[in-house]
Amino acid sequence: MELLTSLEWRYAAKKLNGKKVPQEKVENILQAIQLAPSSMGLQPYTVLLITDPAIKQKIQPIAYNQSQIVDSSHLLVFAAWAQITPAHVEEYIAHTAATRNIPVETLAEFKNSLLGMVTRNTDEQNFQWASKQAYIAFATAIAAAAEERVDATPMEGFNAAQLDELLGLQEKGLRSVTILPLGYRDEENDWLAKLPKVRRQKEKLFIVQ
Amino acid sequence: MELLTSLEWRYAAKKLNGKKVPQEKVENILQAIQLAPSSMGLQPYTVLLITDPAIKQKIQPIAYNQSQIVDSSHLLVFAAWAQITPAHVEEYIAHTAATRNIPVETLAEFKNSLLGMVTRNTDEQNFQWASKQAYIAFATAIAAAAEERVDATPMEGFNAAQLDELLGLQEKGLRSVTILPLGYRDEENDWLAKLPKVRRQKEKLFIVQ
Repeated sequence: MELLTSLEWRYAAKKLNGKKVPQEKVENILQAIQLAPSSMGLQPYTVLLITDPAIKQKIQPIAYNQSQIVDSSHLLVFAAWAQITPAHVEEYIAHTAATRNIPVETLAEFKNSLLGMVTRNTDEQNFQWASKQAYIAFATAIAAAAEERVDATPMEGFNAAQLDELLGLQEKGLRSVTILPLGYRDEENDWLAKLPKVRRQKEKLFIVQ
Repeated sequence: MELLTSLEWRYAAKKLNGKKVPQEKVENILQAIQLAPSSMGLQPYTVLLITDPAIKQKIQPIAYNQSQIVDSSHLLVFAAWAQITPAHVEEYIAHTAATRNIPVETLAEFKNSLLGMVTRNTDEQNFQWASKQAYIAFATAIAAAAEERVDATPMEGFNAAQLDELLGLQEKGLRSVTILPLGYRDEENDWLAKLPKVRRQKEKLFIVQ
């Protein structure tokens, strides 16, 4: 199974070598993100693709000075919607109707259940829910990068408020959730590169009923 | 790219046909879950694998009577740790030392940073964080099932408190987060089976900087 081979190959590279990832591989990773599932299909997040070295340099101190930020080829920032508004729902419903070539009225019940959920919750609850959907896209990106034999270091360790400020995310209605530097491992200088993977034992991780 | 083909193939099946998924495919899906990355490698979740029809029947009304619960071959329940305790951290550190054949003392700094994070946060904050890690495993399981051409319907729509009660999760220190019925689509009777996939347009989903 290709995915198992890819997951065995990957690890969270601690040192990248600065080499560029070919555009075709990046496009495949983005396409996997686009195809990732989400609750009700809403995809309540936006993904920033950063290659500008000046921006990466400004992000590094916000992310505990981790070197992978500046040594990455591309840096992905997964940002969830800070608020989920009726306009978001309207746009999604219109897009669904257009994609499936059906009258928008046939989606009225679905739209109302979505609107009900979104308006019942606080902005913070909606953001937390949106963040979880972003994690699905994030995990899908990690698997896609691994299949392309592109290293990707999943990161939660950064100051989200400062990153939002730097990237102007508030004005875009977004809040950063995770970041994912893409690049190639510097095997010689990465202490983690040759260590065995640690995973919980199956008898602890699973309960069969 | 195999993952893209798999993601195109998959959808959230609304009607399953009750056929059994071969054990080998289930094992591959479980192995993908085991290999899924998590923050600091802690894997703060447990996954239940349910095949008992009596249990599935009891779960169905807790999950808005969705038919996929009882028509699934296997039902996965992703449950995050309700509390993250120092004992969890100790066990993880000991397991890491054993896997890598290094003295546990060499992991003291890592252990302390983990303990610091876990004790600084409230149980609810830790649970939310653990839930997000569970979403990574959940997304990895969805991708693995798709590569095996096994249908999987990602579900958040269930009463978590009732499911926890039914499965005795509180006693196990767990809280359910998502469920994933595995099986095979009933293409004739599934209204969604032949509809085109709806995904946000790339120019909306991505910001290039």
